[in-house]
Amino acid sequence: MTGRLTVVGLGPAGTEFATPAAMKALAEATDVVGYATYVDRVPLAGPHQRRHASDNRVELERATMALELAAEGRQVVVVSGGDPGVFAMAAAVFEAMEVGDAAWRALDVRVEPGVTAMLAAAALAGAPLGGDFCAISLSDNLKSWTTIERRLEAAARGDFVIAIYNPASKARPEQLGRAFEFLRQHKPADTVVLFAHAAGDKNASLKIFDLATADYKQADMRTLIIVGSSQTRLLARESQRPWVYTSRSERGPAS
Amino acid sequence: MTGRLTVVGLGPAGTEFATPAAMKALAEATDVVGYATYVDRVPLAGPHQRRHASDNRVELERATMALELAAEGRQVVVVSGGDPGVFAMAAAVFEAMEVGDAAWRALDVRVEPGVTAMLAAAALAGAPLGGDFCAISLSDNLKSWTTIERRLEAAARGDFVIAIYNPASKARPEQLGRAFEFLRQHKPADTVVLFAHAAGDKNASLKIFDLATADYKQADMRTLIIVGSSQTRLLARESQRPWVYTSRSERGPAS
Repeated sequence: MTGRLTVVGLGPAGTEFATPAAMKALAEATDVVGYATYVDRVPLAGPHQRRHASDNRVELERATMALELAAEGRQVVVVSGGDPGVFAMAAAVFEAMEVGDAAWRALDVRVEPGVTAMLAAAALAGAPLGGDFCAISLSDNLKSWTTIERRLEAAARGDFVIAIYNPASKARPEQLGRAFEFLRQHKPADTVVLFAHAAGDKNASLKIFDLATADYKQADMRTLIIVGSSQTRLLARESQRPWVYTSRSERGPAS
Repeated sequence: MTGRLTVVGLGPAGTEFATPAAMKALAEATDVVGYATYVDRVPLAGPHQRRHASDNRVELERATMALELAAEGRQVVVVSGGDPGVFAMAAAVFEAMEVGDAAWRALDVRVEPGVTAMLAAAALAGAPLGGDFCAISLSDNLKSWTTIERRLEAAARGDFVIAIYNPASKARPEQLGRAFEFLRQHKPADTVVLFAHAAGDKNASLKIFDLATADYKQADMRTLIIVGSSQTRLLARESQRPWVYTSRSERGPAS
């Protein structure tokens, strides 16, 4: 087999944050496979390049198709937003490989890292991920809500900054509200909470709440939530929203 | 003031993973400030561009100098490896701003996200960050070892995949060993442990251990450690090291 499968992430928006390594893989691809939103962001490399755009909810089918194409000798790129290894397509490709044709394990498979959404959201706000942090997806398609609460509780107990991916969708409009209710039992009411919408995009926006008043209804599929630790601080500015950052030191800034 | 300060991350190695947005900021900079290792990676934009390379341990002095230069009207870029918001320079810039000249808060400050080390390490291995995960720095320069153990325990309790930054340095050769000893009390002996060295670089290497036998002495400053969750799996391959990935589902792959 001479095919290759490369799993790439485009970064948070457009291709302004895509790495040269990811763009090179896309330029060499004979086949680009992915959720339509991401496939549409990729510049067409030429008339020979085939596009395989699919719906959002079919990760395993998409991964299987990509492996099949690579096994036929094609140069396949599976495209995600952000980083392909963070709540995106890379794990789905290895799951499909594990349960699929044993010959797929001999394929030339590569993963190209990218800028994941929480990093773009943090950059928009300042440096809220400046201390230890964790990332939790609120989607309970593949894990139980009990597991999600167990992780939120552990994150609170460890005083981690918490990045929340997939906070809401049409099928799950209430889960961020449940998560906030749960976190209010485990973290101070004045904990900083950020809603970063479309971070990295031209029309990016940021809202700053505290945990007591954070309004889950203002989040959608393109929102990334960051819940601060005890060291997350606001830095007031005249006529502009404050910077938000997490002090690297337990003794406060500049100690 | 017409100066600007942009904090950028170059990604894990060279500039192959640097974003176009970060490279644009560097091309426009009159002053590039940073740890010498990172400053040396940046192509010189022209004879007008000044370099301010410094030692690794002086983040706040470096941040203060960058703010002073921007206040003088210079176009300053503070350069980090990886992502500037993850155990890097962005938080130091805001700390310096908080305790420094009030006029600095009116400066045009931006943060450009980048590919942080754990994403490159994960890509090298497969998709070990495929589930919920956390990132912990083992450096106790700015926080106590008690806090580090509290976070390791919480991470184990929450069954997070754990990315460990700054696992060892010449001044702290034993701390990764202490962290493994501690984790052995809280996680199964067969938990997958990865040592990714110089991930993203041409001479990158990966070692796969289990928690029982992970040898902390094989880590150095350029190593990123990933400790798996209960869902982190090895996918055997003929004549090659196994892929490592974390199943997105609690019910195992492809369920």
